[in-house]
Amino acid sequence: MATVEELKLRIRELENELIKCKQQRSQENLQNPVLRAKIDKMSAEVVDSNPYSRLMALKRMGIVEDYEKIRSFAVAVVGVGGVGSVTAEMLTRCGIGKLLLFDYDKVELANMNRLFFQPHQAGLSKVEAAEHTLRNINPDVIFETHNYNITTMDNFTHFMDRISNGGLQEGKCVDLVLSCVDNFEARMAINTACNELGQTWMESGVSENAVSGHIQLIIPGQTACFACAPPLVVAANIDEKTLKRDGVCAASLPTTMGVVAGILVQNVLKYLLGFGTVSFYLGYNAMQDFFPTMAMKANPQCDDRHCRRQQEEYIKKEAERPKQEVAEEEEKVVHEENDWGIELVSEITAAELQDASGPKPDLPEGITVAYTIPNKDREINSGETVEETDQSLEELMAHMKKL
Amino acid sequence: MATVEELKLRIRELENELIKCKQQRSQENLQNPVLRAKIDKMSAEVVDSNPYSRLMALKRMGIVEDYEKIRSFAVAVVGVGGVGSVTAEMLTRCGIGKLLLFDYDKVELANMNRLFFQPHQAGLSKVEAAEHTLRNINPDVIFETHNYNITTMDNFTHFMDRISNGGLQEGKCVDLVLSCVDNFEARMAINTACNELGQTWMESGVSENAVSGHIQLIIPGQTACFACAPPLVVAANIDEKTLKRDGVCAASLPTTMGVVAGILVQNVLKYLLGFGTVSFYLGYNAMQDFFPTMAMKANPQCDDRHCRRQQEEYIKKEAERPKQEVAEEEEKVVHEENDWGIELVSEITAAELQDASGPKPDLPEGITVAYTIPNKDREINSGETVEETDQSLEELMAHMKKL
Repeated sequence: MATVEELKLRIRELENELIKCKQQRSQENLQNPVLRAKIDKMSAEVVDSNPYSRLMALKRMGIVEDYEKIRSFAVAVVGVGGVGSVTAEMLTRCGIGKLLLFDYDKVELANMNRLFFQPHQAGLSKVEAAEHTLRNINPDVIFETHNYNITTMDNFTHFMDRISNGGLQEGKCVDLVLSCVDNFEARMAINTACNELGQTWMESGVSENAVSGHIQLIIPGQTACFACAPPLVVAANIDEKTLKRDGVCAASLPTTMGVVAGILVQNVLKYLLGFGTVSFYLGYNAMQDFFPTMAMKANPQCDDRHCRRQQEEYIKKEAERPKQEVAEEEEKVVHEENDWGIELVSEITAAELQDASGPKPDLPEGITVAYTIPNKDREINSGETVEETDQSLEELMAHMKKL
Repeated sequence: MATVEELKLRIRELENELIKCKQQRSQENLQNPVLRAKIDKMSAEVVDSNPYSRLMALKRMGIVEDYEKIRSFAVAVVGVGGVGSVTAEMLTRCGIGKLLLFDYDKVELANMNRLFFQPHQAGLSKVEAAEHTLRNINPDVIFETHNYNITTMDNFTHFMDRISNGGLQEGKCVDLVLSCVDNFEARMAINTACNELGQTWMESGVSENAVSGHIQLIIPGQTACFACAPPLVVAANIDEKTLKRDGVCAASLPTTMGVVAGILVQNVLKYLLGFGTVSFYLGYNAMQDFFPTMAMKANPQCDDRHCRRQQEEYIKKEAERPKQEVAEEEEKVVHEENDWGIELVSEITAAELQDASGPKPDLPEGITVAYTIPNKDREINSGETVEETDQSLEELMAHMKKL
């Protein structure tokens, strides 16, 4: 049996170990994120401790009428990769009301050439890692994360439900859906959901060669949807990562993805807070620092029946509007110059577009392929490999219709 | 005196407390950054654990001839705020050889509306906090930080020395200087240093109303320097934070600053790795999603004698070049259309520029004030308050000459 002295010695040992452990913990916690307190009401007060002073200043500068309104909006970000993560961070720092994040990928060291994720997060799910970081940055934002692939049947139904009911107040729809995904199927899934729900959304994409990208605003019934154009035809971009065969990966750059996220969220702010002009389509050609813009009308022959229904409803609503209002808006409507109602508003030339893109099918002048389409024989959810194509536009469209 | 039972009870208590402490430590450490191992040679291997695979893919995509060359460059970033911090992060993730960071500010919660810094870093010096984060992201980069104001006499001398000798190999100059500062004096200090040293640099800026920005490439002797134009006259921008009187602060947005950092670092990559076209001047008007470009020749009457010397040397060097080579370059040279050799290459109209900027002096058509100039009576290092001006361009220039 232990003597009193032995027991006392053991107590001293344990006490010392405990002190040491506590000291280590406290030291480690110095490096650990500490949540700032929640802030009930955004203040414009100019003090170093106010995280909203520089945003509320937008009102005094005459840019935004009511910045605090940002807190009343819920935005869904689908895809939390190179563009989506930065998009979510910008919205979080801007003080958005609620963010819904959808992704089924894990953080990898191979993602470290883009902003946001850090090496110690490798192995974590992207939505989990993102929520942790974003909540530390701004605890005022409400986060809802879904670690799943929206293109599978069950998840798609759940995704539709969250778009319809996941607004700032449960039961209300979200205010905007942002597509920051890297493959064709996911874009089509978002398009299908938004057409059915009449949900306005914004598309974004970065080319496989990392030096071009774009954003696009899609208002069901009013502008071309992803199935209208056909989805393959936008301008001077090839989708990132769709060409991912045997050890071949797409290139990516933090610069291009940062610029695309920046112009995307800038247009989200303009759309939600009502300032400036929201772009229907804005491209970024990094080689020449060239930023083409354009607008596309909806296609009355669109394959998506919900798109056609939304178009009918839009035409009906427009017809019911007072004539003066319509006349004022008229100037904004683009002219039809080809079958798809696609018109390049910018001064981009066909040669410039050609320089900025890879091999592509035979298309009307000034228009090039935006996305590599999936292989005919591919299953809808494999999402991994895509072959290069030299089919004509007609072939591509016929092929799309079969899908 | 304690009984054996009491001692044993105390031991059990301590043991439990120690286990609890250790468990807490281990849990907290899961959230703590863990440095990844250094990587000797960039590999193009496509595995999830390779942080450089997506960058090395730029070679296979035909964009960059030798991406690994990025490791041989040293870049100085002056100003680690909204634009500079993101600039440093992008360069770090791209695997730049060495980064030199200069700033004298502390992180504040008021900075949280821009990317990069996090609430738990409030109170730390910006260069210290940035180095900690960046080293975790990419331990392959060499960091050198200077927590001082480059505009004071002693620091300016030291700054000049580090630009001249702080290259990847000590004793060699850096490859590029990036100005990401938010005030007039610091820009002038960088301009003075780079003119004297013949050091190529890039300027960046974001307007006080947060909705426009620009980048500019300055090659001493060849393009207009910051004192050539005069420094006040560029396009559609007012400097951020120069108007900071009694409780009034400039507005800022993570979007605009992210876009400016993105186009800045994209042009750094194009300049260092030799791909695409490097922009001499690229503006960003967020309200209209409009990106004006232009180029400015150096002013033979520039107030900076080192600029005039560099111009003479450049003219001499050009005269010595074979004629064919010169003829090929000729098309790139812009035409002189006004006293300052300023020409807007883009299709921007004076009205568009006016819409995008605040009150400004009487300037040639298509040109507006880029920076609010310091008050006449101000000391060169106070750097805090600037008054609005309605002086004419002539008055402003006369005023600048006096400084």
